[in-house]
Amino acid sequence: MGLIDYEKQYDVIVAGAGHAGCEAALAAARMGCETLLLTINLDAIALMSCNPAIGGLAKGHLVKEIDALGGEMGKNIDATGIQYRILNTRKGPAVRASRAQADKQLYRLRMKHVMEQQERLSLKQGEVTGLVVEEGQVRGVVTKIGVRFLGKTVILTTGTFMRGLIHVGLTNYPGGRAGDLPSVGLSDQLRDLGFTVGRLKTGTPARLDGNTIDFSRLEPQYGDDPPVPFSFSTERIDRPQLPCYIAYTNERTHEIIRSGLDRSPLYSGVIEGVGPRYCPSIEDKVMRFPDKDRHQSFLEPEGCDTVEYYPSGLSTSLPIDIQYRLYRSIEGLENVEIMRPAYAIEYDYVDPIQLHASLETKLVRNLYHAGQINGTSGYEEAAGQGLVAGINAVLRVRGQEPLVLGRDEAYIGVMIDDLVTLGTREPYRMFTSRAEYRLLLREDNADLRLRERGHAVGLVRDGEYRLFLEKRERIGAELERVRAAKLLPSEADPSFLETHGMTDLHNALTFEQLLRRPDITYAELSRIDPASDLVPPAVKEQVEIQIKYQGYIERQLDQVERARKLEGTRIPAGLDYAVIPGLSAEVREKLLRFRPDTLGQASRIQGVTPAAVAILSVAIKSGSASS
Amino acid sequence: MGLIDYEKQYDVIVAGAGHAGCEAALAAARMGCETLLLTINLDAIALMSCNPAIGGLAKGHLVKEIDALGGEMGKNIDATGIQYRILNTRKGPAVRASRAQADKQLYRLRMKHVMEQQERLSLKQGEVTGLVVEEGQVRGVVTKIGVRFLGKTVILTTGTFMRGLIHVGLTNYPGGRAGDLPSVGLSDQLRDLGFTVGRLKTGTPARLDGNTIDFSRLEPQYGDDPPVPFSFSTERIDRPQLPCYIAYTNERTHEIIRSGLDRSPLYSGVIEGVGPRYCPSIEDKVMRFPDKDRHQSFLEPEGCDTVEYYPSGLSTSLPIDIQYRLYRSIEGLENVEIMRPAYAIEYDYVDPIQLHASLETKLVRNLYHAGQINGTSGYEEAAGQGLVAGINAVLRVRGQEPLVLGRDEAYIGVMIDDLVTLGTREPYRMFTSRAEYRLLLREDNADLRLRERGHAVGLVRDGEYRLFLEKRERIGAELERVRAAKLLPSEADPSFLETHGMTDLHNALTFEQLLRRPDITYAELSRIDPASDLVPPAVKEQVEIQIKYQGYIERQLDQVERARKLEGTRIPAGLDYAVIPGLSAEVREKLLRFRPDTLGQASRIQGVTPAAVAILSVAIKSGSASS
Ligand SMILES: Cc1cc2nc3c(=O)[nH]c(=O)nc-3n(C[C@H](O)[C@H](O)[C@H](O)COP(=O)(O)OP(=O)(O)OC[C@H]3O[C@@H](n4cnc5c(N)ncnc54)[C@H](O)[C@@H]3O)c2cc1C
Ligand SMILES: Cc1cc2nc3c(=O)[nH]c(=O)nc-3n(C[C@H](O)[C@H](O)[C@H](O)COP(=O)(O)OP(=O)(O)OC[C@H]3O[C@@H](n4cnc5c(N)ncnc54)[C@H](O)[C@@H]3O)c2cc1C
Repeated sequence: MGLIDYEKQYDVIVAGAGHAGCEAALAAARMGCETLLLTINLDAIALMSCNPAIGGLAKGHLVKEIDALGGEMGKNIDATGIQYRILNTRKGPAVRASRAQADKQLYRLRMKHVMEQQERLSLKQGEVTGLVVEEGQVRGVVTKIGVRFLGKTVILTTGTFMRGLIHVGLTNYPGGRAGDLPSVGLSDQLRDLGFTVGRLKTGTPARLDGNTIDFSRLEPQYGDDPPVPFSFSTERIDRPQLPCYIAYTNERTHEIIRSGLDRSPLYSGVIEGVGPRYCPSIEDKVMRFPDKDRHQSFLEPEGCDTVEYYPSGLSTSLPIDIQYRLYRSIEGLENVEIMRPAYAIEYDYVDPIQLHASLETKLVRNLYHAGQINGTSGYEEAAGQGLVAGINAVLRVRGQEPLVLGRDEAYIGVMIDDLVTLGTREPYRMFTSRAEYRLLLREDNADLRLRERGHAVGLVRDGEYRLFLEKRERIGAELERVRAAKLLPSEADPSFLETHGMTDLHNALTFEQLLRRPDITYAELSRIDPASDLVPPAVKEQVEIQIKYQGYIERQLDQVERARKLEGTRIPAGLDYAVIPGLSAEVREKLLRFRPDTLGQASRIQGVTPAAVAILSVAIKSGSASS
Repeated sequence: MGLIDYEKQYDVIVAGAGHAGCEAALAAARMGCETLLLTINLDAIALMSCNPAIGGLAKGHLVKEIDALGGEMGKNIDATGIQYRILNTRKGPAVRASRAQADKQLYRLRMKHVMEQQERLSLKQGEVTGLVVEEGQVRGVVTKIGVRFLGKTVILTTGTFMRGLIHVGLTNYPGGRAGDLPSVGLSDQLRDLGFTVGRLKTGTPARLDGNTIDFSRLEPQYGDDPPVPFSFSTERIDRPQLPCYIAYTNERTHEIIRSGLDRSPLYSGVIEGVGPRYCPSIEDKVMRFPDKDRHQSFLEPEGCDTVEYYPSGLSTSLPIDIQYRLYRSIEGLENVEIMRPAYAIEYDYVDPIQLHASLETKLVRNLYHAGQINGTSGYEEAAGQGLVAGINAVLRVRGQEPLVLGRDEAYIGVMIDDLVTLGTREPYRMFTSRAEYRLLLREDNADLRLRERGHAVGLVRDGEYRLFLEKRERIGAELERVRAAKLLPSEADPSFLETHGMTDLHNALTFEQLLRRPDITYAELSRIDPASDLVPPAVKEQVEIQIKYQGYIERQLDQVERARKLEGTRIPAGLDYAVIPGLSAEVREKLLRFRPDTLGQASRIQGVTPAAVAILSVAIKSGSASS
């Protein structure tokens, strides 16, 4: 059967409307490109496959960065969030992170609505079954019903759908997610094109019937009051907020789990795909930490209008009888009914070392991969990549240089750099520990780090940008003010001096000097500085953090400076490692396999020594090995 | 792999949460039975596969009847309707019918919410792949992941999902509905059990992108203001209402369609299933009515928060390039973008002559079939059957006689009687012409016909029932009043007499006599009868119709009386047609094949003559042929 050519040609075609695809498509259309989004089911746009929540440790950072760049995720959760919490409030600002529960159905409906309203963005239900590739360059996609859509660039964001295989105990069947059709055919073509297609696995807990949970035996956990929005553009969260509930496994739970392992697809070897080390199933946790006598779970409501609850941390692929016994062994869940069984899913991903830092594939020009297809796990990781891929597809269409965020600029930069320089053989998720410049990459300063870049590419709207500039100015002004304003011992409030052990103070201190002290916050300062009451909280937060952590921040900035030379040095595409003298065979092999784009990338490949990097640097400068 | 037995046993198990399944499950649980509803995807409960609307000619009657009996459909559309219209207002009350557009996503979310809140009803995501049958009796179901749920009764409501095959042009692939997984395995087992499994086909138009429709070139159609609710329990519709738009095909459209027929799965013979005669695809209409130079379509919004539009009457399975040209040839749609392609679907159904009028199958005791699985088409038809199956499963569990609605009682009765006595080889939908007692079966009196039955089985709640009794009493009182109240010529307002040509009136006339005249409505009567202003409109409506149509109504009641004897005569299960003298071979063969439960059913089988019915009647009375 012949293919049917669709008459319209697009600038950007996105396959998949998960969290990566939505950001990619919105970014492309907002930046002025004619954009087509194809997805298997228009009713499942931005559907949360697993936990009904956005953010969390390090993931919150990603969301704030997406928001600062002009992405949608932060606004979408703010419009549909039902519980907000800032985690790690007692720890330093670097690891403080926001998290919010979503009303899952509203989240997806609101995202569809936003996309429908977006000019230049066309939504179509359709499964991409193949790519049109000519002379190493992608020209478009082919769908299941035989239509060829031509586009200058293509972004694949297939999530867990490529050859998805769902496992419950020893039963398995094809599906992209429970209740969804899988994507078949595309990954075969990718393999034929030379991509390394691997198999990963992830899992999700059962959804429990809230009518059958005894909440009186569980401890409620309320969100922050008032809820603090995710987006730098949201003023206030008005939606009514709901509690979660805390539950614990126990020794009996663990016994039940052990008794089912002979019918676990994981432990019996039925699953080949590698699972997420950091989002382990409950059977994994029980086996890996035999001494732990309980594991915690938050029972999270899936929405305001539903009784479905998501028991976090209790994902499993054990057979359904074990699932029932397992959940029911937990206090408060003695009579619980399962509405949707827990399951694991295996799916095809493409090794991300075959990507440039722009997320363009190295093998096929103008083809971008973003999200779970790159071996990551998590909505926020997917959205961050989707946004970058969307931006870079547009920059390619415009003939401009790609946007590459540095490891010193954003967690998104860290993530993409990790992926493209190290590849991954297991589901990759973000952690603060992955960032070497943690103190620079805080949630609170995501706008200071990235708003300008978002505005420069055309994603951050003028109104939002003006608000940002204003905020930045006020921070500058406030910094000046606290540097100039002084506490004169003679005129000071004695009780303030007393509280802070400064009764023998002789010299004047600037407010900056005061704020540097761990025991003096703005709240405290206001006792002697009533003017600070007029400073907006977001400005105070910045000034306080910048002053208190100035030493550390400067040290990290120094490191960044030193690293930047390496990062900035591009390795020419045709560099012939074979003729560079002094490289060991192992280093040569690694460089050939990973094909780093910059010296910085090369330096992070395991086994590439500082000496080898120096040799490379000389070779690049001399141009001796370039073709 | 062994099956896992679920510990809990249910009274009623429903497979499928379409329009049939939802009514069945709600009815069962509300009537006090422990009920389990299994469905392939909990996010697709009560999803409207085709047009985003409830009601319409004859279908509106079904909805009112469902409501009167205590079903949910009427309430659900009232909570989520975005345009209401009463059709045929200029025609007689028998054919007047209500119709409402739904916000499709809200419709399904609200239904899920209602089901979640229903006590004794457990919702589980799961695909039924087999039945547990022992000694000709169903004992439960088996799901895809290998769980056996035991139940006293089982209701199958699989819609278009069994071996669903989706067609777009000459491409086809398995699916239960676009974007949904098919149900595989179940119909094979049904065939093995002796059921006649056939193949039917239905189709749906594309969903169009409202952003690309030029509404200024189309005629808007607004709903009634104020909207009149469906449910007898709804007081008022508060949701904001939206217009539809009227569009027309033209000669060019028809040419385009003809040019694509060589790639039509229907016309090229790829589709084996029989399509709906009364919901034909646009290619069917163009071919069957070559002289018609245009066909009308309503562009119906799919919701308040979406740009998707449903172009009614334009369903097609032509290839996608033809679809684009076809829709774009229509004025106002010149630049339209398709969001979801039109398609046809083939699916397995079970011949409904294998059912009792209770919807229990004749082959497997305690197994019920309802909805599209019985060869019908339409949400309302499905819901009506679902409700009856749900009620009858409960009555079986209670050991009570089934609820069988007569052809003189309800369209639901007509439909089920048609199905089980005549079977169907093409998708069956309801029409007013199918009812012989049309004047008795009006929308307006559905409550008078059925509220009591709904209350008797325990579905209509006491509060609702009390309101109904009150209404019925007021109708009686008002009838008495208008029979007693008189217009005395001497005291009458001369202008009233003038208007109605009664200036030479000598004798007093009762108000009843006045209302019998075609030119005098209640509104007119109020000129001389100010007291009627205090009578509630619903009461006036009844009194007016009962008086104006009294003659016709009485004639139909007579016919009903005569037919009732036949209907009431049960044919004993073991009746041996072979030994009854005087039956022709043809009649014997028909009776054996259809196995009617009553003489009434027998009389409606094509080829069974009145003489044969008389012979049967004698045989039954004498008991001579019973085993
Ligand atoms: C069972 C399960 C458990 C999970 N557990 C976790 C967890 O514990 N922690 C965690 O952080 N994350 C988890 N996730 C992962 C999380 O859902 C994903 O990381 C995230 O949704 C990825 O976003 P994405 O946009 O890459 O893909 P997805 O959200 O999967 O979206 C993919 C989209 O692409 C569409 N699509 C796919 N193929 C095609 C095609 N060929 N043509 C057109 N459209 C296509 C799909 O219809 C879908 O809309 C889990 C996912 C699943 C399914
Ligand atoms: C393409 C298309 C076009 C249509 N066109 C028209 C039209 O023009 N006019 C018209 O009146 N009607 C039309 N319909 C039909 C209308 O949708 C159905 O008549 C109505 O929805 C039937 O209701 P139902 O409850 O019987 O089945 P459905 O609404 O189809 O629901 C079936 C339910 O059962 C579930 N299910 C199926 N198999 C299993 C299983 N084995 N285990 C568990 N769950 C299962 C499904 O997931 C689904 O929830 C069309 C339907 C389709 C798909």
